[in-house]
Amino acid sequence: MDISKFRHTDQIQVRNYEIDWQGIVHNGNYLLYFEIARVNYFKEIGSNIDERSISSSVRIVLVHNEIDYFNSATFNDQLKIYTRVSSIKNSSFVCEAVMFNANTNILIAKNLATLVWTHPTTKKSVPVPNEFRRLVDKYEGGNAAILWPKIEV
Amino acid sequence: MDISKFRHTDQIQVRNYEIDWQGIVHNGNYLLYFEIARVNYFKEIGSNIDERSISSSVRIVLVHNEIDYFNSATFNDQLKIYTRVSSIKNSSFVCEAVMFNANTNILIAKNLATLVWTHPTTKKSVPVPNEFRRLVDKYEGGNAAILWPKIEV
Amino acid sequence: MDISKFRHTDQIQVRNYEIDWQGIVHNGNYLLYFEIARVNYFKEIGSNIDERSISSSVRIVLVHNEIDYFNSATFNDQLKIYTRVSSIKNSSFVCEAVMFNANTNILIAKNLATLVWTHPTTKKSVPVPNEFRRLVDKYEGGNAAILWPKIEV
Amino acid sequence: MDISKFRHTDQIQVRNYEIDWQGIVHNGNYLLYFEIARVNYFKEIGSNIDERSISSSVRIVLVHNEIDYFNSATFNDQLKIYTRVSSIKNSSFVCEAVMFNANTNILIAKNLATLVWTHPTTKKSVPVPNEFRRLVDKYEGGNAAILWPKIEV
Repeated sequence: MDISKFRHTDQIQVRNYEIDWQGIVHNGNYLLYFEIARVNYFKEIGSNIDERSISSSVRIVLVHNEIDYFNSATFNDQLKIYTRVSSIKNSSFVCEAVMFNANTNILIAKNLATLVWTHPTTKKSVPVPNEFRRLVDKYEGGNAAILWPKIEV
Repeated sequence: MDISKFRHTDQIQVRNYEIDWQGIVHNGNYLLYFEIARVNYFKEIGSNIDERSISSSVRIVLVHNEIDYFNSATFNDQLKIYTRVSSIKNSSFVCEAVMFNANTNILIAKNLATLVWTHPTTKKSVPVPNEFRRLVDKYEGGNAAILWPKIEV
Repeated sequence: MDISKFRHTDQIQVRNYEIDWQGIVHNGNYLLYFEIARVNYFKEIGSNIDERSISSSVRIVLVHNEIDYFNSATFNDQLKIYTRVSSIKNSSFVCEAVMFNANTNILIAKNLATLVWTHPTTKKSVPVPNEFRRLVDKYEGGNAAILWPKIEV
Repeated sequence: MDISKFRHTDQIQVRNYEIDWQGIVHNGNYLLYFEIARVNYFKEIGSNIDERSISSSVRIVLVHNEIDYFNSATFNDQLKIYTRVSSIKNSSFVCEAVMFNANTNILIAKNLATLVWTHPTTKKSVPVPNEFRRLVDKYEGGNAAILWPKIEV
């Protein structure tokens, strides 16, 4: 991941109860940190849909989550997380994120998350609305690989 | 708390991610263990209302939670939790619970939780239904201090 | 609890995964929020002992935790937590805390936590060091009820 | 993943506080469920090293974790998790796991986790001991792709 491609950043302070028996942040918490940053990303680009949005017509579902762990975080660490939507296809999009220790700049972890737009009752995938494509495109300034549908959705 | 008064018991296995930097179960998890046992208690007495039940007319709200910690639990510990409704008043009831190490019988913690029946929209307290009083009374065999309303609710 | 007696405050942002099936912060998380604030309190008064400090001679153990729930927090809420040590006895001390919605000033919850200084191997209680009494006394400006031992510890 | 290749299974009951605002198990919990099963797997094959084992000479570090989500779990679901070590290389090994609803047999999620044997102070990778290779080989009956070092370690 090329840090220069990321525009959105968040800072998260490690909480003491997130530290495990080894004196480091338990591996499950990094996934939660990345989610916090992802939700903030959606707010920042102006999208009113985040992962908890349940409207009558759509529901955003996480279908894949992947973390590479490089170094561990521990007590009092301030974490800096870069998040971006890197690509949008017909019904799905990919969020890339990378986490550093905000003070030492040591690389902590990388995350790839794939989310799918679905119909809440049929649970079938539906096209990502063009409004969301436009918000990402505008915010990312061309750095996101966006597939535009031939017909307006 | 007098153990002989408790009829309902649960066993819960400590999960490795619940262990904190001190090598013991983090204090916040005991409250969750007691909740798991309380939800199971409601099932066992035959009540279709537990803490997540949101019907059109009632919502059960936790208003007070109190834990005394005596000894800590750690890796692989099997916990035994005794739970009972000890009293029911007009709109509220109290759950007592006590937790032991299931193998050593060492006392781990005690819990008192007070819950209130409320109206989901006005959020005002409403009378505990007599059906719930009957279920507790029957299950506890007279060990619960139940205030019976003069008029049927 | 009299808010004017509290000098230390923290702000905590609710995280989306802390919301439960009812659309509100799950009751177990408030206890964690109060702990975050308590750890920050110890830092602010200049004490190098917090709950995770395990030195050769002491270990601080939580023996009682009590929460009163008044109103629930939910998505995106910013919480303001007031924390103080209200009293110190021979081996134990009490932390009082109160939590508000930072924007609406609605009262969310109150917390009383009792902690005991113990010997890490014998697990017996030991006197609270005078250094800690002095730090609390100085920070709280006389608002904490501190029992001073007759002999220096 | 071919279920017939898995010998180890676990059953985990969803806990009510693991349910999120959407009425389903929050995505972060699946990763924790897979970890519980992995720790149990290590016990069952007779390995005294699990993820929390910190001996003087080795430390097992999670370097990659990957989940595919197919269907969500919810209240009261009983989950069945199949876990196996699918391959062992020089310093690392891969755990495969797959999770079903134990009652409906609906596929919930798949997990791939890569763990590395490291030296606890230098943090450099060290060879996986042959004892661990033998335990996996024996338990898996030839289904694990094990690279055997030319020289005994």
